[in-house]
Amino acid sequence: MSVTAPAGFRAAGVTAGLKPSGKPDLALVVNDGPHHVAAGVFTSNRVVAAPVTWSRAVVGDGTAHAVVLNSGGANACTGPEGFADTHRTAEHVAEVLGVSAGDVVVCSTGLIGERLNLPALLGGVDAAAAALAADGGGAAARAIMTTDTHPKEVLVTRGAAGAAGPDGTSAGAWSVGGMAKGAGMLAPGLATMLCVLTTDAVVEAADADAALRAATAVTFDRVDSDGCMSTNDTVVLLASGASGVAPSRDELTEAVTAACADLARQLVADAEGASHDIAVTVTGASTEEAAVAVARAVTRSNLFKAAVFGNDPNWGRVLSAVGTVPVEVAPFEADAVDVTINGVMVCRAGGVGEDRSLVDLAAAREVRVDVDLHAGAAAATVWTNDLTHDYVHENSAYST
Amino acid sequence: MSVTAPAGFRAAGVTAGLKPSGKPDLALVVNDGPHHVAAGVFTSNRVVAAPVTWSRAVVGDGTAHAVVLNSGGANACTGPEGFADTHRTAEHVAEVLGVSAGDVVVCSTGLIGERLNLPALLGGVDAAAAALAADGGGAAARAIMTTDTHPKEVLVTRGAAGAAGPDGTSAGAWSVGGMAKGAGMLAPGLATMLCVLTTDAVVEAADADAALRAATAVTFDRVDSDGCMSTNDTVVLLASGASGVAPSRDELTEAVTAACADLARQLVADAEGASHDIAVTVTGASTEEAAVAVARAVTRSNLFKAAVFGNDPNWGRVLSAVGTVPVEVAPFEADAVDVTINGVMVCRAGGVGEDRSLVDLAAAREVRVDVDLHAGAAAATVWTNDLTHDYVHENSAYST
Repeated sequence: MSVTAPAGFRAAGVTAGLKPSGKPDLALVVNDGPHHVAAGVFTSNRVVAAPVTWSRAVVGDGTAHAVVLNSGGANACTGPEGFADTHRTAEHVAEVLGVSAGDVVVCSTGLIGERLNLPALLGGVDAAAAALAADGGGAAARAIMTTDTHPKEVLVTRGAAGAAGPDGTSAGAWSVGGMAKGAGMLAPGLATMLCVLTTDAVVEAADADAALRAATAVTFDRVDSDGCMSTNDTVVLLASGASGVAPSRDELTEAVTAACADLARQLVADAEGASHDIAVTVTGASTEEAAVAVARAVTRSNLFKAAVFGNDPNWGRVLSAVGTVPVEVAPFEADAVDVTINGVMVCRAGGVGEDRSLVDLAAAREVRVDVDLHAGAAAATVWTNDLTHDYVHENSAYST
Repeated sequence: MSVTAPAGFRAAGVTAGLKPSGKPDLALVVNDGPHHVAAGVFTSNRVVAAPVTWSRAVVGDGTAHAVVLNSGGANACTGPEGFADTHRTAEHVAEVLGVSAGDVVVCSTGLIGERLNLPALLGGVDAAAAALAADGGGAAARAIMTTDTHPKEVLVTRGAAGAAGPDGTSAGAWSVGGMAKGAGMLAPGLATMLCVLTTDAVVEAADADAALRAATAVTFDRVDSDGCMSTNDTVVLLASGASGVAPSRDELTEAVTAACADLARQLVADAEGASHDIAVTVTGASTEEAAVAVARAVTRSNLFKAAVFGNDPNWGRVLSAVGTVPVEVAPFEADAVDVTINGVMVCRAGGVGEDRSLVDLAAAREVRVDVDLHAGAAAATVWTNDLTHDYVHENSAYST
């Protein structure tokens, strides 16, 4: 599991002292090569944290040697001083590792609008560098947690050791490892989170970028826990080439997508205060974009999400959310729409269907809502969570 | 106060037996003329309740004699049978009052996807017709409540008895009365609610329509309690002409806007489970549309709303919401934005401003959030509420 499973990577997670709780708060992931290919995808929020501005530039040339992540503060809305803090952090990591600061990705997460304790952070970098290990992925995954209740890791293995692909390109085994954090501020473009993916495949920078964009568009971008887009979202892919195996762009995209989908599902399963994970699947749409728009409208309905918390299959709240999507975005007839909750078609042709009491929402954490627009052949799924007392508690009682 | 304050109207509120609680659930408002001018504005949801489809057609010719409202079921997503129920209701009211069914506006509110108990409803119409009174506005306002904790009424009086305006058109006193219900599913286009406005002014149908559209666009359309748009929103204006006073279109628009603003503010103050009313005012915008878009983004942030519930002036959540508005909708520079909460500029030029501990959110129910984009001269205010345990409770424990 995790970022150190693919060959060519070391990682560490330590306590730098940024969190009042004294829990681990600084992680370092290093790509020992032989290649140092990198790609990144970032929040589409116009208000971006200093580390996002910095890291966009770092991966712009397709190369990075290391990623340093802290979970003791977002370093967002901190002005030029906050940017200088990020710059100093990258320079310190570069010095310790003997690489260029321009090859160090920086990620931060935590409260917006507070400066970081830089001396503590830099001391943490020293400790992490000293602790770097080929099995340090687990410690790194724990050190990036904020309101997450457990670390999120993934390992996707492809190819077979010693076997040659039909075209010779994907002979041998290679893998994609990953870690992610994020339990709140989860919303489209991207889900709020930090994610580091590693692969020992031999990858061109352009392929890494294309694979990562394709993967995040159908995974992290389709998670919407609370409709709130972050200032710090970062997904980075590092490729070491240490396996010597060069998968095709399609093979790489498939594996990276599998890793991202697994991590995205883990984020939903650990979302702040949630008691249900809800998959809203829209079928019969005119286009995939239309399907996504309708699914998003449902996943953003506080009323529907509160009903699921109460184990109430209130399909009227689904339909009233579906109806808010403009016709130019998703053409469909309101009186043609079917809604099925956990396999029971409670709404047929825009009206009353099966008895809603047949739906059991209490039995399992996972809830399936299927909306058939009967307006085409496209489909998409967006994941969300229910709206619970614990969500309100976590986000009212604490500044995060 | 209320819909019977202007001359020419009678109303009643009775218990038809639609609500399991036995509380009043049917209201009737009758315009005794001499004029029977009417205008209506309805939800922009594509999924509309049967009474909305019916009432749109009724006010299409600028005339209506009565409005019948029930609060025991939305009659939404009930198919052709639901529409037939609405039609039967209008026909019964018409029969009892001796008017045409095509002049009877029908409004419903309550659970989506359930048929109404029509025999009970028609019996209620008989009882309401028998109880019609020139001081029945208060009873009507109580009979349309659902999760509202108290009735919402308004009276705006203009002109002075016996006085003549400079151009002679607005001599004498006239007034606009109103009642509204709505405590959840409050969102743009329109806020979820039913509202009946009455005036004894002498009004042309085109002026009534123009005044009502102008008034709702800057009042009910700028209330967003929980981001959820209803299937049943209806605002109806009835004009009896009984005062004999003919205000200009501008005078009418001003008075109707004042009445709508008062009622909209009452809706926010009674929103389900809310403990704070939040006015988000955006200034320095390039256009009013840009200001509204930015304000809406903030009023839709669950994280910000939960923070307000916790009396936490978490401006980072305001700024991260501001940043989600696309640049083509609202041009501004993220590092120019100021955020002031209850008079304290906690965020200056996109960074840390005054100490957030100077903000006291516990002292009053009303919270003022001012966002200055420094990108123009336009401004707008959108009202919302905080996200509380009680909101989650009301919307998870009960089907509404």
